[in-house]
Amino acid sequence: MASMLLSRQLSCCLQQNSRLLVFGHRYISQAAAKIDVDFDYDGPLMKTEVPGPRSRELMKQLNGIQNAEAVHFFCNYEESRGNYLVDVDGNRMLDLYSQISSIPIGYSHPSLIKLLQQPQNLSTFINRPALGILPPENFSERLKESLLSVAPKGLPQVMTMACGSCSNENAFKLIFIFHGRTFGCLATTHSKAIHKLDIPSLDWPIAPFPRLKYPLEDFVKENQQEEARCLEEVEDLIVKYRKKKKIVAGIIIEPIQSEGGDNHASDDFFRKLRDIARKHGCAFLVDEVQTGGGCTGKFWAHEHWGLDDPADVVTFSKKMMTGGFFHKEEFRPNAPYRIFNTWLGDPSKNLLLAEVIRVIKREDLINNAAHAGKALLTGLLDLQARYPHLISRVRGRGTFCSFDTPNDATRNKLITIARNKGVVLGGCGDRSIRFRPTLIFKDHHAHLFLNIFSDILANFK
Amino acid sequence: MASMLLSRQLSCCLQQNSRLLVFGHRYISQAAAKIDVDFDYDGPLMKTEVPGPRSRELMKQLNGIQNAEAVHFFCNYEESRGNYLVDVDGNRMLDLYSQISSIPIGYSHPSLIKLLQQPQNLSTFINRPALGILPPENFSERLKESLLSVAPKGLPQVMTMACGSCSNENAFKLIFIFHGRTFGCLATTHSKAIHKLDIPSLDWPIAPFPRLKYPLEDFVKENQQEEARCLEEVEDLIVKYRKKKKIVAGIIIEPIQSEGGDNHASDDFFRKLRDIARKHGCAFLVDEVQTGGGCTGKFWAHEHWGLDDPADVVTFSKKMMTGGFFHKEEFRPNAPYRIFNTWLGDPSKNLLLAEVIRVIKREDLINNAAHAGKALLTGLLDLQARYPHLISRVRGRGTFCSFDTPNDATRNKLITIARNKGVVLGGCGDRSIRFRPTLIFKDHHAHLFLNIFSDILANFK
Repeated sequence: MASMLLSRQLSCCLQQNSRLLVFGHRYISQAAAKIDVDFDYDGPLMKTEVPGPRSRELMKQLNGIQNAEAVHFFCNYEESRGNYLVDVDGNRMLDLYSQISSIPIGYSHPSLIKLLQQPQNLSTFINRPALGILPPENFSERLKESLLSVAPKGLPQVMTMACGSCSNENAFKLIFIFHGRTFGCLATTHSKAIHKLDIPSLDWPIAPFPRLKYPLEDFVKENQQEEARCLEEVEDLIVKYRKKKKIVAGIIIEPIQSEGGDNHASDDFFRKLRDIARKHGCAFLVDEVQTGGGCTGKFWAHEHWGLDDPADVVTFSKKMMTGGFFHKEEFRPNAPYRIFNTWLGDPSKNLLLAEVIRVIKREDLINNAAHAGKALLTGLLDLQARYPHLISRVRGRGTFCSFDTPNDATRNKLITIARNKGVVLGGCGDRSIRFRPTLIFKDHHAHLFLNIFSDILANFK
Repeated sequence: MASMLLSRQLSCCLQQNSRLLVFGHRYISQAAAKIDVDFDYDGPLMKTEVPGPRSRELMKQLNGIQNAEAVHFFCNYEESRGNYLVDVDGNRMLDLYSQISSIPIGYSHPSLIKLLQQPQNLSTFINRPALGILPPENFSERLKESLLSVAPKGLPQVMTMACGSCSNENAFKLIFIFHGRTFGCLATTHSKAIHKLDIPSLDWPIAPFPRLKYPLEDFVKENQQEEARCLEEVEDLIVKYRKKKKIVAGIIIEPIQSEGGDNHASDDFFRKLRDIARKHGCAFLVDEVQTGGGCTGKFWAHEHWGLDDPADVVTFSKKMMTGGFFHKEEFRPNAPYRIFNTWLGDPSKNLLLAEVIRVIKREDLINNAAHAGKALLTGLLDLQARYPHLISRVRGRGTFCSFDTPNDATRNKLITIARNKGVVLGGCGDRSIRFRPTLIFKDHHAHLFLNIFSDILANFK
């Protein structure tokens, strides 16, 4: 059924715009037909426009309870499987956004269902402890089989938190505690500007993230200059604030600046930034909330850098099912209750994570992300060559890919059209489209997407 | 077994200190023998000192991973039931602290186990959505049967968050958005001072919470003066900050100042504070993270006040299984993404909460808290009369009771002795002991505790 409907859409495109198809090759490969994720669906299946009538009705209902204008559509998670998100109107979409990058091994993974069905696991879901004072017997063991089994090199200490912002907040606290001072830090979110409007903030310096040209390998010299400029500004800010008697306690950076528009930098840039942090006595915090968990082709994106001296703190959330942070031994608080709240995460999330990590290892999903990411990136570069007026600055590491569109309106229109053709995409920055598929996204999913998107671009007016 | 061991301990006390028992009456009542929570144990059962050898071993292990000095002991949650927390050494304790007040209807409640066993609920636990953009079909419905079914009067809007601090943080944001300004708020936590050491903060005025004499009804006049002094200071601070061009956007207050030492104030005080907020155009935020959920004998502690004009925002977490806040229609953000993060709570917690609320209503647990609280408070007042050198300032609403001890060392010693006699208690402030039992804490549990504690006080050196 799914592939039938898809073919109908494609043939419809063929009839209306056959001229456009001449320019490029199509991405149908042998891989596209293969279903190698056994609980996955075999393709999108669209029944209504999205949001459909049921979603619209539910949006209206929810909007009576809270501002629901950010809602894309309502979902049927019971029917969602693998890489496919099913909505309440029965539309089944290839999900390349995976709940803002937070579904690690696809929807309704059989291993997780099994986990929930085991009677010995029930207690973990209904007896949530105050982990800091009364942990369950298996707490250390579970941390070892989950988080510590993938700990970044050199960071043997770990704390769990309930969400991403708590993780960063508490990592900031850790750094200030370590520093023993009460001054500023070096970065905050570049998420939608509306997140910050009206909210009071601290006087913390923000340095520019390099704005590079892509593909990186074609613009090495220009990009080096841009990175040098940004590194210089970091040092200038540290010195400037020191003169104001505001000592910079730490530098926080994302391996790929995500909400800010998927901005990359070279491994060399990050190594030099790490050196600057050390030189000025600043802690070096790597925010892996969005990049962590394997999607870049390494479990942690910062592993690509080959640092001699590890980061001091690494924060995580999303795909890790729980928030939290790793840190060096020397950053360990010297007293209890310094990093503390009632729940400090949730053992039921640690249980799920332990299983997720087993699946990742068993199915070699990190290498899969590297492989499938290559298929996706190659296809995007090809689309960029064919539609340079619509697609530019194609970039990516693993499946963590993105491209720019000419403007916000075009970007949003492309996302809407793609959704109605059965593909869920996300935006970031002011004009970028980002890919955040699950770790079970395979080459054939990339080809499926590229086929659909190629047709969309061919027809785009 | 349990009651046997308990009797053995009691008779041991009787032999050693029979003299002391003459002074007071004992609390053994008919109720104490009755087991009216059918999945509950019938009493404490102590096998080792607490923490026992297995707990100590696990503490050492966990301390290799994170600072574990705040850990009291390790728990066997699978074996914990009702009001009883079982530790990894097989000790079973009457739990009057309930994971810092966050276990609403006791451990391993049969209704929650059943919920987990229903196949149609599995998906909710393993497919965690980004609620702000892709909610599940039943999201509004579930909010209605859970949070909105107990919404404070006048607050029809609700948002969920992953934890208590996120709830307050985002409620602050809501207030600043509403205010459209970027200035200070009126209170922050009075938790352990070590929580705040070294951490930078905003220039927000903090007004004193009234320091009253108890029982409140015996010191009406003095307490009125103290409350008037505090209210005056609130207005002075608002005016003083306004002169500094820092407009106070909101006032945040707990109905019972919890971490700060269980400080109460009269209903009249809160009504006047609400009036001051209105007069100066400040939002009025009631933090019910610890007081909410029924333990004070009303679902929300601020219902006791009888406000004409409802609070503007009410935050919650702990017993509510999920963090979040209610607010007035007019505080609703006028644009999407203004209050936003990836998860925005967790539908699996909403599912659990819906069931918890069904149990609370079915078993009339709010009235139970009022009733059992009275038994507890009466007993504490009696102990205070008998041991004024050890117990003072007995206070409470519902089961949310507490008393002061002479000093930090005595407090901690009493908590340790009680634990080894099979009762888990918590501390707050610099010398208080607080009671935070579950909502299925009954009169006979109060009597059981009072018997044990009476003996402890009789023997205390």
